[in-house]
Amino acid sequence: MSKPTVSPAPESKTEIEEGTVFAPRFDADGLLPVVATSAETGEVLMLAYMNEQALARTIATGEAHYWSRSRRRLWRKGEESGNVQRVVELRTDCDQDAIWLKVETAGTGASCHTGRKSCFYRAVPVGAAPSGGLSLRFVDAERQFDPEAAYRHAGAAKRTLKSSE
Amino acid sequence: MSKPTVSPAPESKTEIEEGTVFAPRFDADGLLPVVATSAETGEVLMLAYMNEQALARTIATGEAHYWSRSRRRLWRKGEESGNVQRVVELRTDCDQDAIWLKVETAGTGASCHTGRKSCFYRAVPVGAAPSGGLSLRFVDAERQFDPEAAYRHAGAAKRTLKSSE
Repeated sequence: MSKPTVSPAPESKTEIEEGTVFAPRFDADGLLPVVATSAETGEVLMLAYMNEQALARTIATGEAHYWSRSRRRLWRKGEESGNVQRVVELRTDCDQDAIWLKVETAGTGASCHTGRKSCFYRAVPVGAAPSGGLSLRFVDAERQFDPEAAYRHAGAAKRTLKSSE
Repeated sequence: MSKPTVSPAPESKTEIEEGTVFAPRFDADGLLPVVATSAETGEVLMLAYMNEQALARTIATGEAHYWSRSRRRLWRKGEESGNVQRVVELRTDCDQDAIWLKVETAGTGASCHTGRKSCFYRAVPVGAAPSGGLSLRFVDAERQFDPEAAYRHAGAAKRTLKSSE
């Protein structure tokens, strides 16, 4: 498994914030939050997590890999839906505990499992104290694919592969 | 303290993903990750966290509030530096466990405590297996203010206020 050879963790705040050594600081669960944006439009597509292996695979292959917290496994984005994310740029933040990916999404161009381009397809009203709960407003919420069909197909294909092994 | 009156948590995945009830799902520490982007340029400015109170204050005031994990307290962004973030739009994601803020930053326009517009001012090389560690490249890293001067000033002002109480 190719992975970035990370130098010993810098010791000072100055080294972490102003240095050129990449020394990602994973949280207690071994994860980093990752923001993926569209390299074309700048739109935030999703927020997900990487463990060390997912980060290493992303860097080595130029395709976004994440750690699925629900499935507890490495997840190559688009492995089922075909909507692979090619990484145009990868950045880290001041204290090296978050990642920003600018990506180009293949296939239908959707990054959300609901079939939408972005996972952030609902706005919350701001500036007024709500009297009885906050109502979400759908924005940029057109589906690019039918998730039921896409994942049913992928599941069927996988089962077919499996049964022919 | 004004806070959004959140309806009982929706029970089904469909309600969470396709409904109009805002029912943010905080993690085990009571936090949500928040991506703030520039409403003007789309650039990712920072990744931070909100607890329920920070989210409520953000929604009620239209100014970004976060939970500072290092200082363990509510943090009105820009309270020391003057670089307040006015929220242009607030969105939640498919499973309602992350927030995207589009903001206009007041003052110097910097959102990073290092004096830069964005916390993401260093890129990690992608696509090549590194032989001896990964070297960060500074990008869009011009400082908008001198952090030492800004926070020293704010600290002094606060001490003055405190001593006159």
